[in-house]
Amino acid sequence: FLGVDLGGTRIKLGLCTAQGEVRETAAIPTSAERGPEETIARMGNAADALMKKAGRAEACGSGVPGPLDLARKILLRATNLKGWDKVPYPELLGKRLDLPTFMENDANCAAWGEFIAGAGRGTRSLVLYTLGTGVGGGIVINGELWVGASGAAGELGHMTIDPNGPKCACGLNGCVEQYASATAVARKWGKGSCKECFDAAKEGDGSALAAVDWAADGLAVGLANMIHVIHPDLIVLAGGMALAGDFLIDRVRQGVRRRVIPIYLEKIRIEGSKVPGDDAGWLGAALWAARRIAS
Amino acid sequence: FLGVDLGGTRIKLGLCTAQGEVRETAAIPTSAERGPEETIARMGNAADALMKKAGRAEACGSGVPGPLDLARKILLRATNLKGWDKVPYPELLGKRLDLPTFMENDANCAAWGEFIAGAGRGTRSLVLYTLGTGVGGGIVINGELWVGASGAAGELGHMTIDPNGPKCACGLNGCVEQYASATAVARKWGKGSCKECFDAAKEGDGSALAAVDWAADGLAVGLANMIHVIHPDLIVLAGGMALAGDFLIDRVRQGVRRRVIPIYLEKIRIEGSKVPGDDAGWLGAALWAARRIAS
Repeated sequence: FLGVDLGGTRIKLGLCTAQGEVRETAAIPTSAERGPEETIARMGNAADALMKKAGRAEACGSGVPGPLDLARKILLRATNLKGWDKVPYPELLGKRLDLPTFMENDANCAAWGEFIAGAGRGTRSLVLYTLGTGVGGGIVINGELWVGASGAAGELGHMTIDPNGPKCACGLNGCVEQYASATAVARKWGKGSCKECFDAAKEGDGSALAAVDWAADGLAVGLANMIHVIHPDLIVLAGGMALAGDFLIDRVRQGVRRRVIPIYLEKIRIEGSKVPGDDAGWLGAALWAARRIAS
Repeated sequence: FLGVDLGGTRIKLGLCTAQGEVRETAAIPTSAERGPEETIARMGNAADALMKKAGRAEACGSGVPGPLDLARKILLRATNLKGWDKVPYPELLGKRLDLPTFMENDANCAAWGEFIAGAGRGTRSLVLYTLGTGVGGGIVINGELWVGASGAAGELGHMTIDPNGPKCACGLNGCVEQYASATAVARKWGKGSCKECFDAAKEGDGSALAAVDWAADGLAVGLANMIHVIHPDLIVLAGGMALAGDFLIDRVRQGVRRRVIPIYLEKIRIEGSKVPGDDAGWLGAALWAARRIAS
């Protein structure tokens, strides 16, 4: 199976088995200003080269950063990419590749990849948070990706955790994204990037530690609320900020323990991603194509 | 199918078809102080009388008000009932009736009943809120009841909507239940019961209207948060407070519209229960038994 991760600066591609064994990978720059037609042509060339090396794929899945019209198979908009307005992306890419091609939100792909080939192996349900520039999410319930009535399930970054909290780009106040994104951490700290803040916190810097605690606590409120709704076997923290590992995750676990009655937490694990970040996007998309072909 | 709704003051029983057509119903007082053994014997007698009239059931389902150990089929505790500690309830009731017998949380049963025989007919997913003394909930996803890792999914009343909000019995602050329950409305109004508050509000009383608006708005925050997670086709408001109908529901719809971007709301309906309140408990439980027998 072929996976294509359409990112704002880079397109990552790869081939894997239906169980998630990686065969070959490649990456090309996105050239954000050149629009979908040229980009899809370049994706096709890169995919051809991969398949020449490792054999032809059965189907292709692509994770995309933006709102979809799943019923009509249209990518409505791609975050940080010019000219990607209402593109019938899976149709165009599928024609170029001559393969059945499926598209899904990138965070949903990441959740599916984690379920099949990562931390979610053996579980029945998981909820994945992507902690990056923003906060996204994906949900697997009863062994199936759950995308909701029209694809908007798992918008975990826009849960309100404090009606008097900071204003969010979505127009609401106090969204999880205003606490648990790299953007929010850097803003709260005020002395550098999120990565620098975590580095400083690990070395004991007081203001950096306060910013990390604040972010972990905001995320914990969101997790606790989500647990009262879905109560999944597993919660996976993925994305750039989750690279901080247990330094972040232990704080989140503590925050959740303060907000959910113990009996509800007995069966729930909170873990970091087990799919390497560089592969999570295309691998999840490829495995999603494998699932769609099988059903 | 036989349904048994174990309530704090009354046990409601009924017989229905697998499609939810009601055949016969009966009710007996719970006699809360007499414990499980005698209560189950009296349930059995009432069920026998029903089945004499309308024919023998294939299976029995019972909705129960309390935390369950679903894996070990034990009712851990029944709210407002004495002596119901760690009772192997489905086994005991099943023996008395000589029928395969299943137990589920009463709000989950209500969600399932609504899905098969109420407002949820034809949907793929719904989330039901029970607005009574407290706030409970049940979730149907992909046509299946979703109870979570160990049965605690759908605890919709204990989502935090304001970390600085009123203290809840669960130990947290600002739970949905502290706004959208009959108890909370009566406390907020301070001049009578929840029912009296709604009556006064309908006649234009200012302080009663303020209390209703406050409750509707708190519930709307909880709904908006849940929508960002599950994004179901349908949200059903059930329970005593929901009897206020569109007087309440229109306010909740407005509050949700202020808190969820319009594209996410296009496919979502918010409705009152379509299963008559008096039947919702036992009917949902009977239909749950029908589902379990079929799978």
